Parts: sequence; C-alpha cells; structure tokens
Amino acid sequence: MINYTSRIIAGLICTTLSLVISASGTFAQNDPLPSWNDGPVKQKIIRFVTSAVSPGEGYVKEPERIAMFDNDGTLWCEQPTVEAEFAKSRLMGKAKTDAALRETIARVSAAMKNGKSADVQRDILSLLAASHSGLSEEEFADAVRVWLSTARHPKSGRPFTEMHYQPMQELLTYLRENKFQIFLCSGGTLEFMRVFAPALYRIPRQNIIGSSINLETRYNNNGETDVYRKPGIARINDKDGKPVGIELHLGIRPAFVGGNVRSGGDIAMMRYSQGRPSASLQILVNHDDAEREFAYAEKDNFSLNAATKYGFTVISMKRDWKQIFPK
Amino acid sequence: MINYTSRIIAGLICTTLSLVISASGTFAQNDPLPSWNDGPVKQKIIRFVTSAVSPGEGYVKEPERIAMFDNDGTLWCEQPTVEAEFAKSRLMGKAKTDAALRETIARVSAAMKNGKSADVQRDILSLLAASHSGLSEEEFADAVRVWLSTARHPKSGRPFTEMHYQPMQELLTYLRENKFQIFLCSGGTLEFMRVFAPALYRIPRQNIIGSSINLETRYNNNGETDVYRKPGIARINDKDGKPVGIELHLGIRPAFVGGNVRSGGDIAMMRYSQGRPSASLQILVNHDDAEREFAYAEKDNFSLNAATKYGFTVISMKRDWKQIFPK
Repeated sequence: MINYTSRIIAGLICTTLSLVISASGTFAQNDPLPSWNDGPVKQKIIRFVTSAVSPGEGYVKEPERIAMFDNDGTLWCEQPTVEAEFAKSRLMGKAKTDAALRETIARVSAAMKNGKSADVQRDILSLLAASHSGLSEEEFADAVRVWLSTARHPKSGRPFTEMHYQPMQELLTYLRENKFQIFLCSGGTLEFMRVFAPALYRIPRQNIIGSSINLETRYNNNGETDVYRKPGIARINDKDGKPVGIELHLGIRPAFVGGNVRSGGDIAMMRYSQGRPSASLQILVNHDDAEREFAYAEKDNFSLNAATKYGFTVISMKRDWKQIFPK
Repeated sequence: MINYTSRIIAGLICTTLSLVISASGTFAQNDPLPSWNDGPVKQKIIRFVTSAVSPGEGYVKEPERIAMFDNDGTLWCEQPTVEAEFAKSRLMGKAKTDAALRETIARVSAAMKNGKSADVQRDILSLLAASHSGLSEEEFADAVRVWLSTARHPKSGRPFTEMHYQPMQELLTYLRENKFQIFLCSGGTLEFMRVFAPALYRIPRQNIIGSSINLETRYNNNGETDVYRKPGIARINDKDGKPVGIELHLGIRPAFVGGNVRSGGDIAMMRYSQGRPSASLQILVNHDDAEREFAYAEKDNFSLNAATKYGFTVISMKRDWKQIFPK
C-alpha cells in the first residue's frame, strides 16, 4: 500500500507540474490527452487523428474509423490477470475434490507469479472453461458482477475496475470525439468483459470481441429459453485469433489498434490493420515502469522487434505517461 | 415476366387506393408504415414502438432497443434463396470435374424447386463452404459484388437487391427513428450479407450475425496479412444457433424480432426474446400471397403453431401488406 500510495502521490505531482507546463505548451487550450507527456508518441497520435478527420492524405472515411483495443495490459493492469483471479476464486470450491484441477491451478499460479502467463495461455483458458460452465449466460454475468464488487487488487487494494490507465481513457474519449467507433479485442472471454467494459470504457456490449466458450440454446420446463454455457472453449481470441475475431464480428480492418507487450498477442491484429488501403496507426504499450506500475518484457522481444520491423508506435509508460491510474 | 408485371401493377393500384383511403384514416398525417394495411398487426407494431419509447409499462431502455431481423423470407425474397444461387453459379466451374459436387448440387436444386430448402440446409451450407473457400475475405466479397451486379431474379428479372420488401424497409426506418438498433440475424453467411446489407437495409457490417465458415490468419511472402477462408463450416446461425449467435455477438436479448415461416428457423430467437424481463414483440411473416409474391408453408406448421402458443404476431403478406416490393 505504501508503495502504491507513493506512486499515486508521484503521479499527482507530475500531473500538477504538467498542468503548469502545458499552460504554456503546444496543447495549452485544448489538450485532448492531458495525461500524456508531450513528445513524439503523443504528437504522432494527434497527427494521425487530425489527419483522419481532415480531407487530404491520411483521411479515414467515417465507417472505417474503427479502433480496436486489447484490454489486459493495454487498457487496464494485467498483473495479475483479472479474469484469472476471478477463475481462481470460482475454482476454490471445486478444487477441494479435484486433484487435476488443483494441479492446473498450481501451474497457472506459478506462471503468473513469474510473469510467464503466456506459457500457460491454454491452461488459463481451460480453467476458465471449467470454472465458468454449467450455468446460463445471465447467471454467469451475475457471478462476475458479485465478484468484481468485492475483489481487490493484491498490491493496490483498489477494486480491479479502478486499475485502468488514465491516459488510455483519454485516448478513447479523443478517438470517440473524432467519430471513431471503439471496439475491445481481447483474449478475455466475452461475458466476463461485458460486465465491466460498458461502464468502465463506454464500450457497448456489441463492440466487444473476445474468447468464447461453447454455448447452447436450452429450454427449461417452464418453456423458458436460455443460452447455456457448456464446458469447452469455442474460440481463443489471441494472436492469429484476433484478425479472425475481427473478421467474424465486423470484417473491417481497423484504422487504429492499441495493444501491449507481454506475449505477442496483439501483433497479428496490428499487421492486419496495416493491410488497410489507406492510413492506419498501431500503438504498443510497453510496461517499463516498475515504479508506478510494473516492468516486464518478452523473452524473445517479439512484439518490440515487430514494432521496429512494421513501424508500430511504442508507448513507454515511464516516458510517455504523466499519470498511470485514475486518482 | 407478365405475371410479375401484373403483380407490380396490382401493387401500384393498391398503393394508390390506399393513399386515398389513408388520407382520411388513422395515420393520415404521419403514417410510419404507409405500405401496411391498417389492421390489428400494424396497430400492434405501432402500439409496441410507441410504448417502448414512452415512460410507463412497455418502456424499453435505449441500450435494450435491439431489433433482430432474419433476412431470407423476412426482409427479402427467398424464392430462390439468393446465396444458394450465388453458390450454384460459383460451383459450375468446379462441378465439371467433381461428381460428388454435381450430386450435391442436383439434390439442393431439386429441393429448392420443391420449396423444401429446409431439408437440405446442411447440403446448402456444405456447398457454400466448397464454393467459397480458398480465397481471402476481401477476394470473396469482390466475387459476391461482381455476381450481384449482374445476377437477376429468375421470375421478375430484377436484380436480387431489388427483391426486398417495402413494408419491412418502412419498419426498419420506423424502429431506427425510435432509437432501436437494427441487427441482421440470418442463416446466410457473414461476408455474403456484408456486401449488400449496409446499403440495402442501412444495417452496418458490425450489426450482421450469420453463419460462418472456417477462417485463418495468413501471411504472404510480402509480409501482408489476410484472413483466409478455409473449407468447412464454423457455425450455423439457424434455429437454436440464432440465440447462440446473438449471445456471441452482443449478449442482449432482443426486444423486437422479425422472422418468417418456412423452416422454423426463427422460433428459437423469438422465444429467447421473450425471456427479456420487460416488453418484447415478435413478428412472423407468413408467405401466403401467391399472386404478388409466393405462397408456401411448413409441412408440420411448426412456426405458426409456435406463434399461437407463444403469442407471436403473424403477418399475412396478402392481408397486411399493401405493397410487397419497391416500385
């Protein structure tokens, strides 16, 4: 808590200073991204959006103003992965009488602690399937809602829904004001994200693309119809699954993509975005701020190498963000 | 052509007469549904929409104003099924050297002629998979676009995109004006519908729910990323598949559902809609107008029986629609 509080205070000081600075700076009057430090990254984003809405080179027609954002590590904190925490809490009961389940949980927990969640991606999703099936979609959503209302981030002690990035919230608003439609495109499962994303990011349920477990229409004795969650994963919306998920949902190559460094999960949709016939921008959040958030990297440097090769814009949380979390 | 022309003329006369009648009728000033005959069905729709937007019983909150429409036989003519015609035209070349394919085509064609397309639903979709795979999503969309620009309805000689129902177009507009979001929820495949639905119905690509074939992200030698269509069907969006499709796409039980009698394909999503905690309306188009369109029924009367049991509103094309096709 002390660590975290000091981070918040540091953030506050930075913000205050930056307000003073920006009063005489480039974005004095109407800075759309006040929590971003002035510099090449911020300028590149603003230049892209300004061009997108102005006739001429870089113009993006309104129906093509599709912005696709990853969630974990891009819009909110992924240390620990929130949906895995939810799964663990739901699995506690079941695990008491299920040794295989206990082993899988142990494996995932260990990987999480070592920041190697990518190595157990399938384990994570099998846990989600095991913990989240055997009930209707609405019952599941209720369970998520109840859990989110009491669960707390292990380090900050704040609700997980407060662990989102203030600069990214400003970016969402900025894009929205310029008539971009914002979509979530995450490895998280659909019904989990639908519980918090509409209120947290102002992203409606119909703009959420995610992993899905097997679903089935069922009729109960009262003649009522439910969509029931069966064990088993239907589709994983990660890596090469992301362009497929976008294609299944709307089939428009996004003009703007936001992702992050951790497991290479967002590179495929960034390259897919670059296949647009006209302008596009891809931004990649790099978690390099151990002081205010977390610092972690990929062993093989896959995402940062791809950024260099394909010209994605890398955001250094340390350098580019004045403030990380909301106050 | 003579038959069809006479139908059009009959339609014109009806419309002219009805304009005279309605000038002194209930909806004299602001009839939102001018191609609908006055009567219980039209009144029920207007009553539902009026209540949905007015405080009190029957009110539907704005984010819940989701209207889900089937396409074939609900919004446009399904005699013959347009996507099957496209598939047949694409398959001609391949069939020359493929006997099994020739047999499947013959089976489907025979069933279509006898109005039994429901019996060969899986055959139809396997043909679609066979004819539509082996190219990228964009290449496929181009092929659909080219075909639609030249193909003609066998009876009317009009482009298929002119064979949509004028009364349903008015209903879409009416719902849209009352802040309903319109979605297509059809057994047709996604990328096929995306080519025409945005212009034809003002339904954006991101509001289209349909059947899907297997997709894969591929990288070519130039480092370009495509979503490639592989053989095989990923999901059939028909019957019990429709609530699942809605759940995968947005997870909101629709307040309004439009479907039609033919194969029982829309009953599941209508029952699913009735599971809403508050008001909902389900309308079922009955093709009973051999004179102006086609007359066909289900052998087991499944959809009409369900309508009686669950209180869906049945539209008689003959009785309720002044005009069928646009002029």
